[in-house]
Amino acid sequence: MSVWPVLADDELSPRSAAVIADIKAVRNTDFINNFWRVLANDPALLERTWESLKQVMGPGAIDPLTKELLYVAVSIVNGCEYCIRSHTAAARAKGMSEAQLSELLAIVGMASETNRLATGLQVPVDPEFLPKPAS
Amino acid sequence: MSVWPVLADDELSPRSAAVIADIKAVRNTDFINNFWRVLANDPALLERTWESLKQVMGPGAIDPLTKELLYVAVSIVNGCEYCIRSHTAAARAKGMSEAQLSELLAIVGMASETNRLATGLQVPVDPEFLPKPAS
Amino acid sequence: MSVWPVLADDELSPRSAAVIADIKAVRNTDFINNFWRVLANDPALLERTWESLKQVMGPGAIDPLTKELLYVAVSIVNGCEYCIRSHTAAARAKGMSEAQLSELLAIVGMASETNRLATGLQVPVDPEFLPKPAS
Amino acid sequence: MSVWPVLADDELSPRSAAVIADIKAVRNTDFINNFWRVLANDPALLERTWESLKQVMGPGAIDPLTKELLYVAVSIVNGCEYCIRSHTAAARAKGMSEAQLSELLAIVGMASETNRLATGLQVPVDPEFLPKPAS
Amino acid sequence: MSVWPVLADDELSPRSAAVIADIKAVRNTDFINNFWRVLANDPALLERTWESLKQVMGPGAIDPLTKELLYVAVSIVNGCEYCIRSHTAAARAKGMSEAQLSELLAIVGMASETNRLATGLQVPVDPEFLPKPAS
Amino acid sequence: MSVWPVLADDELSPRSAAVIADIKAVRNTDFINNFWRVLANDPALLERTWESLKQVMGPGAIDPLTKELLYVAVSIVNGCEYCIRSHTAAARAKGMSEAQLSELLAIVGMASETNRLATGLQVPVDPEFLPKPAS
Repeated sequence: MSVWPVLADDELSPRSAAVIADIKAVRNTDFINNFWRVLANDPALLERTWESLKQVMGPGAIDPLTKELLYVAVSIVNGCEYCIRSHTAAARAKGMSEAQLSELLAIVGMASETNRLATGLQVPVDPEFLPKPAS
Repeated sequence: MSVWPVLADDELSPRSAAVIADIKAVRNTDFINNFWRVLANDPALLERTWESLKQVMGPGAIDPLTKELLYVAVSIVNGCEYCIRSHTAAARAKGMSEAQLSELLAIVGMASETNRLATGLQVPVDPEFLPKPAS
Repeated sequence: MSVWPVLADDELSPRSAAVIADIKAVRNTDFINNFWRVLANDPALLERTWESLKQVMGPGAIDPLTKELLYVAVSIVNGCEYCIRSHTAAARAKGMSEAQLSELLAIVGMASETNRLATGLQVPVDPEFLPKPAS
Repeated sequence: MSVWPVLADDELSPRSAAVIADIKAVRNTDFINNFWRVLANDPALLERTWESLKQVMGPGAIDPLTKELLYVAVSIVNGCEYCIRSHTAAARAKGMSEAQLSELLAIVGMASETNRLATGLQVPVDPEFLPKPAS
Repeated sequence: MSVWPVLADDELSPRSAAVIADIKAVRNTDFINNFWRVLANDPALLERTWESLKQVMGPGAIDPLTKELLYVAVSIVNGCEYCIRSHTAAARAKGMSEAQLSELLAIVGMASETNRLATGLQVPVDPEFLPKPAS
Repeated sequence: MSVWPVLADDELSPRSAAVIADIKAVRNTDFINNFWRVLANDPALLERTWESLKQVMGPGAIDPLTKELLYVAVSIVNGCEYCIRSHTAAARAKGMSEAQLSELLAIVGMASETNRLATGLQVPVDPEFLPKPAS
C-alpha cells in the first residue's frame, strides 16, 4: 500500500488528467503504471517529473535501449525495487535480450566491487584521467 | 596517498608482473593506471579482479561503449571518484561524445530522483511488471 | 518476520521493560511500535538507542516537525522502508500536511539528482563555500 | 578540476547565458557558483535543472530554511561534498544557527544508525503505520 | 518472484549443474539456496561468482565466522534483504551468538552515524592516519 | 578545512575538555584525532557520541580487532574517507596484518557485487533463512 493512494482515471484532477493523457499519447498505450497514478496526487510534481522524464528519455545521442539499461543499473545501485521492476520491463519491451540483462547485471556487480576496492584503498587519480587545464 | 603503495614495474612480484603484462597486452598499451598498481600489492586480488573484469567488459551482447557508460553510471551512484574519473576517460577513449556524457548524467540524475520518489511513496509494483508464474 | 522476535509486554526483561515504560511515558501513549519491541531483545542496545533518540529528537533549536521531516528524508535516501513508514506516520501526527510531504519528496528527489550531477562532473568547491581560516 | 570546464561569463552560449542571468536575477546576486558554470556546458541540462530547482526550492508549504536543511541532509547521506558545502553555506545565509546545524547533524547520524538497525533486523512494518484502505 | 526463474535441479544446463554440484560438495549439503538457483540461468555468471566466492570466503588470514560477520555488515549498509537473511543464517550456522549479532548491529549503526557526522562536517584527515611516503 | 574548526586543547569548553580528557585516559594516549576536535564544538554531541562509541567498541562478545574490521567495512560502503583512514589505522594498531586487510577488501568488494546481483534479480528469500514462528 503506497503512502498516497493509487488513483484511478476517474479520481484524477483535471491537471493530473491532462498529464496522464499525455503519457498515454506519447507511449501509445492505455496502460498507466502505478508510479504515475501515485504521483497524480500532486499535479505539480506529476507534471514536472513527466516533463523531465520525457525530455531525458526521449530521442538523443544515446539510443533508447541503452537509456533503459542505464536506468535499470542506477535503480539497482539505489536499491529501488519498484524502479528495477518497471525499467527492467521497459528495457525488455525495447528489445533487451536475456544475454544483455546478464551482462548488465555482471557490470553492475563488478563495478560495485571495484568501486569499493578503489574507495577502500583510496587510490589516487592518475593525472592522465584529469582534464588538461586550458593553456 | 593510497592505503597501499602504487607499485612501479620493478617493484612487482613475479605473479603480479604477469598480470600487469597481460593488462598491457589486452589493452595494447604500456600505460597501467594506479588502480592496478595498488591492487598489485596483493597478487591474488589483482589476478581475480583482472580476470573478472576482462570477462565482464570483454566482447558480448552489449557493445563496449555502452559497457563503459554503465560502469560510469554505477560509479557515480556508488560515489567513487577514482572510478568516475577512470571510466569517464575510458568511455571517451571508446568514442563517447560530450552529448552522450550529457545524456548519461541526465539519466543518472533523473533515475536517482524517481528512485527516491518511488521509495519515499512506497509505490506498489504493478502486476504487469512481474514475471508470469510458470503454468 | 524480523531476525529477532517482536516481544510482547509480558516477554520483556526487567531492564527492557523499564525502557519501554519510559517510551510510553515520554510519548504519552500505550502504543509501542515494532522497532522498540525488536530492539528489546538486547536491553543495552534498546537503552542506548532510546536515550540517544530522546536527546536528539527532543526540544532544541529545530522544531519537532522539521526534525521528523529530516528523519523521513534521511530514511528515504538510506532506503529503509520501516523507517520511512514509521517516521512519515510520526510527521503526520505532528502536523505534516500532504502539501508539505509533497515538497519534502520533491526536495529529496531533486537533491539526489543534483548530488549525482555534481559527483559525476566532479565540480570543484567554490572558495566562497569554505570556512575562512582563522587570522 | 571538473570533468567539464567551469565557464566564465564570456564563454557562455546565448542559451546558457539567459539561464545564468535568470539565476542572478532570482537570487539577487552576481555570484554564480561552480555547479551552474559547469552545467552551462550543456544548455538543455542547465535549463531543466534550474527550472526544477527554482520550482522545488521556491515558496511553498515548507519554509525556505527548512528546505535547505533537507537539502543538506540528503547531500550528506548521498556523500556529495560539493552539495554539502554549497547547501550548508546557503542554509547559513538563510539564517541557520550553529545550534541548528548541530541538531541537523545529530539527526542525520541518528537516523542513519536506526535505519541500519531496522534494516539489519528486518523489522516488520506495524499495521498502524500503513494507510487505511479505502472503504 | 525473481526476474529470472528459480531453477530446480532438473532444469539446469550441464554447465550450471556442474557448478551446483561443486557448491553441494564444498558446503557438504544438498540444500542450494535461491541465489544460486537464479544465477544458474546464466552459467558464465554463476561460474564466475561461485569461483570468486569460494576463493574470497575460503580459508585465509581472517577466520570464517568473522568473514560472515563482515558479509552481513556490508549487506545491511547496501540494503540487500536477501543477503542480510542468507548471511545472517550462515553466520549463525558458523557459531555466531545472539550477543555477537547484537554487537554487530550496534557497530553497523554506530559506524553509519559517525560516517555521516564526519562527512557532514568534512573533517580533514589527520596526517597521522596517512601512509608515510617512501624515503 | 572542516565545517567547524578543529579545536586545540586550549580552545575547549570545560564540558568538551572533560570528554577529551576521558578519551585520552581510555585510549592511554595524548593524541586526539580531528574527528573529536571538530565534534568538540558541540559538547552535547561530543559527549553522546563518545559515550556510545566507548560502549559499542568496548569489551564484549566480539573481539576488538574484529570490531575495527567491521567499522572499516561499513565506512567503505558508506563512502566516508575520514572514517576509512582513521579506522584502518586503528585496525593496524590493534594488529591487523596486510593479509587481513586484503581479505577484508575482497569481502567488501565481493559482498557489494552479490548484493547488487541479488537486488537486481529480486531473488526471493528462502524459507530456510527466515526465523521459525513461535509455536
